[in-house]
Amino acid sequence: MARAWSLKSRPQGMPTMDNFELVELGTRDLKDGEIRVANSWLSVDPYMRGRMNDVKSYTPPFELGAPMQGGAIGKVIESRSDTYKEGEMVQHFAGWRDEAVLPADQAQSLPQLDVDPQAYLGQLGMPGMTAYFGLLEVAGAKEGDTVFVSAAAGAVGSTVVQIAKAKGCRVIGSAGGAEKCAWVESLGADAVIDYKSGTPVVKALGEVARTGIDVYFDNVGGEHLDAALAHGNQGARFAICGMIDVYNSGKATELRYLARLIGMRMRVQGFIVSDYMDRAAEFYRDMGGWLKDGKLKRNETVFDGLDAMPDAFLGLFTGGNTGKMLVRV
Amino acid sequence: MARAWSLKSRPQGMPTMDNFELVELGTRDLKDGEIRVANSWLSVDPYMRGRMNDVKSYTPPFELGAPMQGGAIGKVIESRSDTYKEGEMVQHFAGWRDEAVLPADQAQSLPQLDVDPQAYLGQLGMPGMTAYFGLLEVAGAKEGDTVFVSAAAGAVGSTVVQIAKAKGCRVIGSAGGAEKCAWVESLGADAVIDYKSGTPVVKALGEVARTGIDVYFDNVGGEHLDAALAHGNQGARFAICGMIDVYNSGKATELRYLARLIGMRMRVQGFIVSDYMDRAAEFYRDMGGWLKDGKLKRNETVFDGLDAMPDAFLGLFTGGNTGKMLVRV
Repeated sequence: MARAWSLKSRPQGMPTMDNFELVELGTRDLKDGEIRVANSWLSVDPYMRGRMNDVKSYTPPFELGAPMQGGAIGKVIESRSDTYKEGEMVQHFAGWRDEAVLPADQAQSLPQLDVDPQAYLGQLGMPGMTAYFGLLEVAGAKEGDTVFVSAAAGAVGSTVVQIAKAKGCRVIGSAGGAEKCAWVESLGADAVIDYKSGTPVVKALGEVARTGIDVYFDNVGGEHLDAALAHGNQGARFAICGMIDVYNSGKATELRYLARLIGMRMRVQGFIVSDYMDRAAEFYRDMGGWLKDGKLKRNETVFDGLDAMPDAFLGLFTGGNTGKMLVRV
Repeated sequence: MARAWSLKSRPQGMPTMDNFELVELGTRDLKDGEIRVANSWLSVDPYMRGRMNDVKSYTPPFELGAPMQGGAIGKVIESRSDTYKEGEMVQHFAGWRDEAVLPADQAQSLPQLDVDPQAYLGQLGMPGMTAYFGLLEVAGAKEGDTVFVSAAAGAVGSTVVQIAKAKGCRVIGSAGGAEKCAWVESLGADAVIDYKSGTPVVKALGEVARTGIDVYFDNVGGEHLDAALAHGNQGARFAICGMIDVYNSGKATELRYLARLIGMRMRVQGFIVSDYMDRAAEFYRDMGGWLKDGKLKRNETVFDGLDAMPDAFLGLFTGGNTGKMLVRV
């Protein structure tokens, strides 16, 4: 019997277990063109917090009392479509559940790279594309640039570090705690800031970015963004990918160095990865090459079982993951 | 005997009269290639506040105990240069004084447009170019866009309003007080917000920008910038020209709507007009045309006499000017 996490109530501030309810979906026969997928891997991502609010945004809000959605990888166990045969692995967005019934055209075959299937939810999937297009297109990072990236131990940030290194940039990452910082360093970062060390980020960044930064890849907002403004060089480009600092608190961001934007002619650009989906081929080509060359490492923090999914999700906001946060069904 | 305002001390916060000292420059013979200019008009501009600080920026700090500098228009009264004859009007940057001695190559002839000479310190000079390139290049404003501009009764803002109208945009201006608002409306603005009315800017803007804004031209920062973030449409472009709100206070900017950058793919770009100086011909061509067509109105707030110059400057930060703030020598 298929089960799914449903949105029981909308959170005010940090979500709690009370906002989620595990419901039985029942089982129904497939219609023409549909497939049934037994999910193996489910994704939890920070952007899902936004969908829990009843606010119009780039993705529609989750509906109250309905199964939640998100990235998933699974095996086709029944097919009434010519596109997929039983036994094929596919990716799709009917996540937050152990078994999904969906039209075949809402699923995609996995790209044929030599990598574990769950990587397509992380470094070789949406978070990886976010890193790739955000760094190279939105921020226009190029050889010789000093790149600063926050949440550098996360799914997106850790990929930014490695793409930036592959492109010949100097990379400064920020992460919380010695263990994560050590991992970010092992990815090739030239310097790592531990934002939990008690030193203000603006001071710590100044110490390792003596000649300033040219690119900032922002996953957190707040104090990190202000530090980047404080140390941005002339013509610095900021790719604003996420502001996990305010997703739950909803509090105002205090920026002391914002006026440097003017004299330094800095650019701050928000972006959404879905705008680049039609260029996925470039991403897979470059990432495939770097995979082959051993230039891409990844890490996963795995929660086991559908029951644990809200815990995995909540862990995103408390620094619970190194690398991609995943649920193995 | 030539006199000049010298920087006596660096201000902490809002400058006061004590920071300025009127000194005698003495008179010396011209060297080869120099001219002596009797200044007729002197400019005070918000950016000068930055030069009073001992901080490296896009213009070097004013030196303590030395004559200050700034835009000026005057008549050549003595020349040892082949470039300028006695009696010619020139513009130059040896302002804050009644008489200037300078190398001829640091002066420029006035463009030949049918306009009062002091206009070359305002709408047809640096503030006008700031409006023109900021609006059209940095923000990329185009026909049909809704453009929001703060300090819309100022030298830059009032020109932004009129260029935007000439380009077929819908224009919302913000100004302080009924009189300034009425003037901004007379320039063609489709709606005007009185930020001194007691209604929060974010609310007032929402009431007149029902379908959001596509461009924000920022002269003030702070609450106005946050309101623009709150109402920015997808792909909105912000040209950040000035943040007069924080020039003196140095306080942090609190932004409640910053995370909208992401979902709305907004771009925030700081700029400095001097980067566009090599394109002045475009500016004079377009502005000349609009002048001829009667599409450009201007206003000046004039202080009389060199002695009054610090008062004129301080008035910039207390809303003392409508249009360009000038000192007539």
